[in-house]
Amino acid sequence: MKVLVLGGDGFCGWPCATNLADVGHDVVIVDNLSRRKIDIDLGVESLTPIATVRDRLTAWEQVGGAPIRFEHLDIAKDYERLLELLRQEKPDAVVHFAEQRAAPYSMKSSGTKRYTVDNNVNGTHNLLAAIVESGQDIHIVHLGTMGVYGYGSHRGATIPEGYLTVEVPQPDGSRFTEKILHPANPGSVYHMTKTLDQLLFFYYNKNDNIRITDLHQGIVWGTNTALTEKDPRLTNRFDYDGDYGTVLNRFLMQAAIGYPLTVHGTGGQTRAFIHIRDSVRCVQLALENPPSHGERVKIFNQMTESHRVADLAEKVAALTGAQINYLSNPRNEAVENDLIVDNRCFIELGLSPTTLDDGLLTEVVDVARRWADRCDRSRIPCLSAWTRRQAAALASPA
Amino acid sequence: MKVLVLGGDGFCGWPCATNLADVGHDVVIVDNLSRRKIDIDLGVESLTPIATVRDRLTAWEQVGGAPIRFEHLDIAKDYERLLELLRQEKPDAVVHFAEQRAAPYSMKSSGTKRYTVDNNVNGTHNLLAAIVESGQDIHIVHLGTMGVYGYGSHRGATIPEGYLTVEVPQPDGSRFTEKILHPANPGSVYHMTKTLDQLLFFYYNKNDNIRITDLHQGIVWGTNTALTEKDPRLTNRFDYDGDYGTVLNRFLMQAAIGYPLTVHGTGGQTRAFIHIRDSVRCVQLALENPPSHGERVKIFNQMTESHRVADLAEKVAALTGAQINYLSNPRNEAVENDLIVDNRCFIELGLSPTTLDDGLLTEVVDVARRWADRCDRSRIPCLSAWTRRQAAALASPA
Repeated sequence: MKVLVLGGDGFCGWPCATNLADVGHDVVIVDNLSRRKIDIDLGVESLTPIATVRDRLTAWEQVGGAPIRFEHLDIAKDYERLLELLRQEKPDAVVHFAEQRAAPYSMKSSGTKRYTVDNNVNGTHNLLAAIVESGQDIHIVHLGTMGVYGYGSHRGATIPEGYLTVEVPQPDGSRFTEKILHPANPGSVYHMTKTLDQLLFFYYNKNDNIRITDLHQGIVWGTNTALTEKDPRLTNRFDYDGDYGTVLNRFLMQAAIGYPLTVHGTGGQTRAFIHIRDSVRCVQLALENPPSHGERVKIFNQMTESHRVADLAEKVAALTGAQINYLSNPRNEAVENDLIVDNRCFIELGLSPTTLDDGLLTEVVDVARRWADRCDRSRIPCLSAWTRRQAAALASPA
Repeated sequence: MKVLVLGGDGFCGWPCATNLADVGHDVVIVDNLSRRKIDIDLGVESLTPIATVRDRLTAWEQVGGAPIRFEHLDIAKDYERLLELLRQEKPDAVVHFAEQRAAPYSMKSSGTKRYTVDNNVNGTHNLLAAIVESGQDIHIVHLGTMGVYGYGSHRGATIPEGYLTVEVPQPDGSRFTEKILHPANPGSVYHMTKTLDQLLFFYYNKNDNIRITDLHQGIVWGTNTALTEKDPRLTNRFDYDGDYGTVLNRFLMQAAIGYPLTVHGTGGQTRAFIHIRDSVRCVQLALENPPSHGERVKIFNQMTESHRVADLAEKVAALTGAQINYLSNPRNEAVENDLIVDNRCFIELGLSPTTLDDGLLTEVVDVARRWADRCDRSRIPCLSAWTRRQAAALASPA
């Protein structure tokens, strides 16, 4: 099928685009290259050297990949060109990664909060409005986050796939049962934008019958897929900095360069994880199994396992001999939580989870060691404070 | 107290601002005058002739009102000036009416959908981010809508004030009870933006302890208050057109000029109503009874009674001898619904509801008759279609 991959130059988008082309879909990457520009603003680079989009696409064809086209377009700012693109390309589906995706970045300043809200909400809404205006029947596959559910819910409760069945007691003693969108409890401005996306999807699905799959993804780890390993110019990005680096990849990279592992708070936070190879496979499965017409928004929990952050640090320490450094927590979140997640939908579609094994962990350490001289150690600490109190705690660490 | 009234030049904002000044608060109106500009774009005018902001404020002082200042500012576009204003004025509270507030307008085109989302979300988020950045403790009173709940819920169920107590059955047979934000079910892009506002408020209240009161208002009817009747230059606006006119005021105005009452669909839609005088009083009550520090977002249902649209049409017809015209419904909504609303919070704070009585209805008819020659009958029909199917039905009416 014809697929537009919005944000197809990013960390999840690029391996996803190559995979979709590899399995026979006709892929167009749409990207405003904002992620590369934010690197410039932050004065930081991907640990792995990444080629330009043009060089990536040339290399892709040189290793035998079916051509992928590229449209340089900001979907949040240039509605008319987005609409024109839908009319020209007539895609069967759009994979939507085109959002600012880092929680710490979203909390750096009022400027980054405002950018994240403006970019993410208008980007998603422009896409929905353009699909309606185009009159076409286009399936949206959107990258959401497990963070929409929050991590403060009842101990032992299972997080369902998007919808929660509740009973509502009435004043007269009667009660009715209803299946509702799981209550939102975001932990950062970034996560909040994904809860706003959910309501945009709910409305446009209800009013205009747009077919939508929303993927509530866990924290991605790993860096390359078999395809992005085919040529150095296809290498995927690897973020290690305090803004964009995610926890497990940061630990592995810190271990590689002999930097004490940065555990924030007690490390009692439990989070959901997924390897980049499974992420890519899940997007493909979602794309190839769209909701039927008239079906409500399909929501999948895109994760394969849950771990306590402290346990991950200990695992990485045991594997590599790294030290662990417990730091004050810049986030406003529960000190500890459990996390039981239902992910049956993808398992039933045939996903065979890649779980945390020593071989894959070592592979990431090897990548990090290879590019260790590209690391700017001063960019490792996370300096975004969620609140004034936490900013004060960061300024004078315990 | 010092109060900024954002959107203080609009239909609810203006009578609210004068009332707050009248009861002794120090009021600054902040408005970008977008409502007047949309009139220009639509080629329509308030039925009542309204003075410029400057003339309104001059007249207000001439009738003995305490001075109200005016800041011409777009809070969705000019964050820096908004922040500067908070720093200079150090308000105790902000009343936030500064949103595009018409459902039909929000559904006119992809342009008006996009404007409504961009303006409303960024306006609200800028206010929240600016309050955090200012470091001040400012209570926000926000005008929301009853429409966040939707009108398709279980027959006989009572709509609570913002939060719903639910029981959540677990796979192991246990269950827990939780008080959640009432599930959102908006009926237009405009209503959707108010459901997004709710999540913005939820997050900033949780993360930054901002004190917020969200008023889920019903459909406002009436036009003037005792204060705006004191001088012709203080007159409030009266919208009768298919975009901004609201149902009961439209019926009364149609009756005044001998135009058949425009009932869309069967008229079986039940909606919540409130007179403009009560709306003004509720905002004052909310302002003077803020949530305590650490309290979650306070949500009030700001309405005094529910009516079926067809019943209202019949009541107006009986009072005035008007004809009723049943038209195809441009909206995508339930044909009929019941509506039982809990509004105890305002009653307990001392609100004495102004209900639909013949005297007040007649007063609106009199206002409409007085200005009947200003009416452009061609602007009465509602031309915004919610979906393509409805656009086709409107194009060839039954």
